[in-house]
Amino acid sequence: MERGGVVLVVLCVIFVCVWGVEGNGAPRPKLWSILDEDGEWHVQAGTYGMERRGVGKEEDGGDVKIWPMPYSVAHGDGTVMLDRGSFQFEFDAGNGSAMPDTLAKAFVRYYDLIFSQHAPRWDASPSDHALVKLVVGLGSRNEELQYGVDESYTLEVPDSSASNVAYLEAHTVYGALRGLETFSQLTTFNFKSKKVQISNTPYVIKDFPRFAYRGLLIDTSRHYQPVSSIKRVLDSMAYSKLNVLHWHIVDEQSFPIEIPSYPLLWKGAYSYAERYTMDDARDIVEYARLRGINVMPELDVPGHAASWGVGYPDLWPASECIEPLDVSKNFTFDVINGIIGDFRAVFPFKFAHLGGDEVDTSCWEQTSHVKSWLNDRNISTKDAYANFVVRAQDIAIKHGYVPVNWEETFYTFASQLREETVVHNWLRGGTCRKAVKKGFRCIMSDQATWYLDHLDAPWDKFYDTEPLLNITDPDEQSLVIGGEVCMWGETVDESNILQTIWPRAAAAAERLWSSLDFTKQGATTALKRFQYFRCLLNRRGISAAPVFYGSSYALGRDSPRDPGSCFKQ
Amino acid sequence: MERGGVVLVVLCVIFVCVWGVEGNGAPRPKLWSILDEDGEWHVQAGTYGMERRGVGKEEDGGDVKIWPMPYSVAHGDGTVMLDRGSFQFEFDAGNGSAMPDTLAKAFVRYYDLIFSQHAPRWDASPSDHALVKLVVGLGSRNEELQYGVDESYTLEVPDSSASNVAYLEAHTVYGALRGLETFSQLTTFNFKSKKVQISNTPYVIKDFPRFAYRGLLIDTSRHYQPVSSIKRVLDSMAYSKLNVLHWHIVDEQSFPIEIPSYPLLWKGAYSYAERYTMDDARDIVEYARLRGINVMPELDVPGHAASWGVGYPDLWPASECIEPLDVSKNFTFDVINGIIGDFRAVFPFKFAHLGGDEVDTSCWEQTSHVKSWLNDRNISTKDAYANFVVRAQDIAIKHGYVPVNWEETFYTFASQLREETVVHNWLRGGTCRKAVKKGFRCIMSDQATWYLDHLDAPWDKFYDTEPLLNITDPDEQSLVIGGEVCMWGETVDESNILQTIWPRAAAAAERLWSSLDFTKQGATTALKRFQYFRCLLNRRGISAAPVFYGSSYALGRDSPRDPGSCFKQ
Repeated sequence: MERGGVVLVVLCVIFVCVWGVEGNGAPRPKLWSILDEDGEWHVQAGTYGMERRGVGKEEDGGDVKIWPMPYSVAHGDGTVMLDRGSFQFEFDAGNGSAMPDTLAKAFVRYYDLIFSQHAPRWDASPSDHALVKLVVGLGSRNEELQYGVDESYTLEVPDSSASNVAYLEAHTVYGALRGLETFSQLTTFNFKSKKVQISNTPYVIKDFPRFAYRGLLIDTSRHYQPVSSIKRVLDSMAYSKLNVLHWHIVDEQSFPIEIPSYPLLWKGAYSYAERYTMDDARDIVEYARLRGINVMPELDVPGHAASWGVGYPDLWPASECIEPLDVSKNFTFDVINGIIGDFRAVFPFKFAHLGGDEVDTSCWEQTSHVKSWLNDRNISTKDAYANFVVRAQDIAIKHGYVPVNWEETFYTFASQLREETVVHNWLRGGTCRKAVKKGFRCIMSDQATWYLDHLDAPWDKFYDTEPLLNITDPDEQSLVIGGEVCMWGETVDESNILQTIWPRAAAAAERLWSSLDFTKQGATTALKRFQYFRCLLNRRGISAAPVFYGSSYALGRDSPRDPGSCFKQ
Repeated sequence: MERGGVVLVVLCVIFVCVWGVEGNGAPRPKLWSILDEDGEWHVQAGTYGMERRGVGKEEDGGDVKIWPMPYSVAHGDGTVMLDRGSFQFEFDAGNGSAMPDTLAKAFVRYYDLIFSQHAPRWDASPSDHALVKLVVGLGSRNEELQYGVDESYTLEVPDSSASNVAYLEAHTVYGALRGLETFSQLTTFNFKSKKVQISNTPYVIKDFPRFAYRGLLIDTSRHYQPVSSIKRVLDSMAYSKLNVLHWHIVDEQSFPIEIPSYPLLWKGAYSYAERYTMDDARDIVEYARLRGINVMPELDVPGHAASWGVGYPDLWPASECIEPLDVSKNFTFDVINGIIGDFRAVFPFKFAHLGGDEVDTSCWEQTSHVKSWLNDRNISTKDAYANFVVRAQDIAIKHGYVPVNWEETFYTFASQLREETVVHNWLRGGTCRKAVKKGFRCIMSDQATWYLDHLDAPWDKFYDTEPLLNITDPDEQSLVIGGEVCMWGETVDESNILQTIWPRAAAAAERLWSSLDFTKQGATTALKRFQYFRCLLNRRGISAAPVFYGSSYALGRDSPRDPGSCFKQ
């Protein structure tokens, strides 16, 4: 089931192989934990009892706490220290070329993440058992981020007896970013030495993603998200190696973004302040790129577009019937052309999303001039819907984009869609299976399991959803470019977006990154590592909600029900 | 009712006087907003209707959008621009002394806050109508932060026709911090010029707090809060000029902090990772000080202390009866002395909180050796409770702290409390009135209106709570040193602490900072400015929850019910 058919190789000769074999997450009584001097902790059961019920190592996340799980991890049982005053990231310049800016900025970020665990001692010169640096080598200096960029890396952290230098090798700077994230997740704080350390050395980690497209949708039309909020979402995506922000910018409720070629569109914003400038969009795209994340803009047509007409009422079929966009006017397509042209100057990603979902064409039938237009051409509203979508596709293609459309377009007029179309599943299970059978590429976002606004879907549903379910032909498998979790914004604003996204999105992120041989073990196997990752997000300032609500899996953005440890909730 | 009896003076000669006279927040229909070229916006009613219903200025927060409202604000109707590439904060060195470090760091923070509104144009040299700098003058270079420090300031922002320099004068650097916060709240982003601006110039603002103690309690025993989370809480406190973080560090559920003199206490932590080192505590105290916030540690004795015995079981009366702490052993007080001594090295605030609430002494009666100890001395459990609290007070006093105790100690044995005791109200209304009548100082935290974990208390209850209710004697009034909102942690962890605290805590913050003549106008008057402040918090990355849930005031940490503008939710 591996894309590319790479054979799973785990180095087991001299290392202990560990892959998520912790016990399940059965409900537990109120616990006291007792810390031993060596950092082990022993769990007592009962409110005030003394009975020992178990022994765990540190935070009970298992020996390998990386999320998502790399392709292969081999390790030993040593420990190295990282001294805050002397540890360094180093770029292996090889032929003498300058360090890529993307890498230099990542070094700053990861140094901060690693050494902001509590307040580590400052050691200006390396102590015994210290890892003195991580050397990063790149196969290419090309910093272009595009769909399918090589994200593979190899990370080697030695035991202190063998060497004091770790190595990270990647073909591209974006592979190096993934490796730096993994490296940062190996580090913990030692409360005895007051230093950052890496346990279970030596490590040899070989890693690459299963799917090239690992997305998260945000919706800034139902609620405006401040730029700072979008940046926090991007930070958090990098932590679980998601790599596409699908920005559903506009919908019927508001049109928050500046469009220089049609400036009155901006009048559809909720308020004066709830708007994005084109410079904001550039800022977001660059912030994302520095984290190895592409931004895919969405322009959802012809439905979900009522807010366009606040600035240009001619886009409404009539003032009392304002959606879908008026199919009968060339002006409609002039505006679409203007928006996509302006997008192209800001969003360099290969794909642009053109929506096409939930189109109720009754407004076209009820409006006399549109009805006449249909009659003159002797076409049905369904034909007009198809013509609209395809005409928008052609505009996007002309501007150099590959169009993505929601699945209704596929089910309604597959034969008319441009062949490069990527079908975006959301409504029905099995859509991708049908789409790839017809030769289309597909993105999986089954609403039953991967819609984050479905608060009643707990994390294990996200984890156990398999994008290639019942797709067995390797050629067809290769057409499923990945998947995406969707954070629709009807009840989400800055105040709750992170805890509605996390930790559940991370479950899908592992499904999309890690090998199927690993993830097919299922959510139960991943549970303790998942809880550990949720607490790591919290430590990094990402407000991931609890995994449990009492003894049941929590729903989306549940608060903790009772007092207790992060690692158990 | 003003403390200090200062007479309200507002300069009305050439300026327009504005003090929160916007309309109420009655429920409104789904709205379209239409932006005019000049930045005004016009609101349309009905889902798709065109009818104009109102005209508002920018985000509808009223002309003066500062929260909490300063003592006096006078302003005009001009506008000045702040150029990102050339605007400067400047310290008026006067006699040539160096700029205080606290101020230098604040300049960096406020520059970032002001110019991170969208992506402002970069103008390396000042443009027309530019404010080129804000000059800060200090009466004293003393950077000691202590209870009662002078937080007053005067801020003058000229109209561009008169001058291009603004002035902030304060007696202390902490007054300057308050003035910088106010200055930052005057700035908005102009979407036409793509620059930061200040509207309604010139401004003359004179300001000082009504109460010296304006607190927020956090609880790191029921749930561990990562250090980064506590720092975010401190950031947000500074935005509404709260100045005491009451850190309820320890309770019966866990003992997360390192105590060097009794290192096994740390075993009462929830897990290996959920602990604070003494360096973490120093880091938090310094982070707070840089924001003009004192940290008051709490050691809640003799109840709420069961977790102490995980490391030292001798502190438990018996293994099956572990709370309150064993009153019969000197070891108990040795440990208290050790903890408070260690606290004194880290927490320089004048006050330490010693708890004393909810003490159920039945465990003492049921444990034979404690019972014998009581019998030998012929004292009741109530006497023993009083003796315990007073002995702890004497330890705190010996270490240079002024003790604060929860109100049960006052109701149970007021006559035995040390005279410097500050009584901390929580359980009953009217406690402060009774406490100050007996000559004690008092902090108001009435649980009916100022407990943030009471999710059913909406923001207007917080706003309309008056700490001096029914206290008319000026001497008695002066004994109410302030108030505090309490964020107990039973159902609060990193994932939801900010939206449970905010925006409701800000309502109490205005009550504690602004003049009674202003706040007595009540919540309805403050509503639109309050909604504006909530959106400002969101823009700054503080996840303040909506003010409304549909057409009713939201409960604590409610999600938005429907799509809509931040300024209306």
